Amino acid sequence: MELAPNYRVLLVEYEGTNYCGFQLQKEEPTIQRELEQALKKLTGQDIRVMAASRTDSGVHARGQLVGFRAEVALPLGTYVRGMNYYLPKDIVVKRAYTVGPDFRLRSGARSRLYRYCLFNRAVPSPFWQRWSHWVRQPLNMEAMQEASQFLVGCHDFSAFASPLPDSQSSVRTVYRAEVRREENLVFFEVEANSFLPHQVRRTVGALVEVGLGRSSPTTFEALLRWPRPSVAGPALPAQGLFLMQVNHPGVEGNVEKYPDA
Amino acid sequence: MELAPNYRVLLVEYEGTNYCGFQLQKEEPTIQRELEQALKKLTGQDIRVMAASRTDSGVHARGQLVGFRAEVALPLGTYVRGMNYYLPKDIVVKRAYTVGPDFRLRSGARSRLYRYCLFNRAVPSPFWQRWSHWVRQPLNMEAMQEASQFLVGCHDFSAFASPLPDSQSSVRTVYRAEVRREENLVFFEVEANSFLPHQVRRTVGALVEVGLGRSSPTTFEALLRWPRPSVAGPALPAQGLFLMQVNHPGVEGNVEKYPDA
Repeated sequence: MELAPNYRVLLVEYEGTNYCGFQLQKEEPTIQRELEQALKKLTGQDIRVMAASRTDSGVHARGQLVGFRAEVALPLGTYVRGMNYYLPKDIVVKRAYTVGPDFRLRSGARSRLYRYCLFNRAVPSPFWQRWSHWVRQPLNMEAMQEASQFLVGCHDFSAFASPLPDSQSSVRTVYRAEVRREENLVFFEVEANSFLPHQVRRTVGALVEVGLGRSSPTTFEALLRWPRPSVAGPALPAQGLFLMQVNHPGVEGNVEKYPDA
Repeated sequence: MELAPNYRVLLVEYEGTNYCGFQLQKEEPTIQRELEQALKKLTGQDIRVMAASRTDSGVHARGQLVGFRAEVALPLGTYVRGMNYYLPKDIVVKRAYTVGPDFRLRSGARSRLYRYCLFNRAVPSPFWQRWSHWVRQPLNMEAMQEASQFLVGCHDFSAFASPLPDSQSSVRTVYRAEVRREENLVFFEVEANSFLPHQVRRTVGALVEVGLGRSSPTTFEALLRWPRPSVAGPALPAQGLFLMQVNHPGVEGNVEKYPDA
């Protein structure tokens, strides 16, 4: 299914607030449904789209990759302008790509970069309320940074996931992890080959416990050293999570794209 | 009316999207109505509030000053926590102040700082759509910066306002003006003793014309040199405008405030 002639890839941004995630559902509004409806209006055809990294209900994306097989290959600029004409304002196509015949959307991706935004001051923000989780108590940045570095490497991350079916591995490789403050915002960024369900939101939940002094970097490290399902605690709310980037060799470098800049 | 014992001042942030401006209206939701309703719930009393710089329908505030006379003087922390408990999420009280007996909310303010946000790239943003005006064509930053400097000083700004009643002066003093780019965002910031109605939104409209090459810094300067009502053209939409700060000697320095930091 991923291999196709006339395969097109879109770089898509969306605010997830009003959607029940990326994936198509019977009744609920989803990103996939909006994209497929816009494609239908643009091309007159029923076209199935796929995401490189499916996002949950309420999660946002700054750089989702969406692939589909185009029966009629329109110019790339037509996909960008035409989709944005038909899409609601909270979903935007930033770029369109033509990819090679051996392109694999999901398995070909090198890594995914996610960001979680915490809003950290005594009173909440009217502007960041949709896109962050509010933590009113001061956060110890050094402790959070120290803990986050234990994530880097190849680990069994089952402490940060619900129990998986037996056949599925909970081992993932984290390439980098970072905690940093910009004024009242605290960002947790993590790049990995792929992620377990709710992994980022459970990880940042455990990091906030460290930042509040209710846990420690050592306790955090133990979650990775002795992995048992779910022990890291509950996931923080979806509204703080952004899929920032899907690193994919198939859409970098010399592929045809629009806009070119 | 501005002089009062037990006078309290709040530093307030709001997203203006869902409100018909600051000032009380019969039917429409306004910031003033929400603040007065929250004060009523908190104190049990009908309290009239006043803004240092009234904002129009759809305009946002990062640092509005709101004053009122408190019959029962509650601790400052109670105003911050209590108001935020009762207020909707798009209005937040950041701080409360006790001010001196000779405090004047409007006439005592030294200056107001406004910011207008332009989102400048080929495709719009799902995140900035509420808080910016989208300009798809590239903007010439140098030309906009050059033009903006003509604003600084004491001028008749009637070119940037609708005709005023004869008795009202259209002379204002701009202390500083700045145009700068941060990635896809272009900010216009202007600080003045006070502003004419729609002055900032008309000024940034004329600056965008300069940035697009449809006008020039010289033509922009002529709007100040030969002031005639409205010649600068229409105002840009309210959604890009933020009241950033009201500089007021009466709430700086040694006054009692909460939170203190």
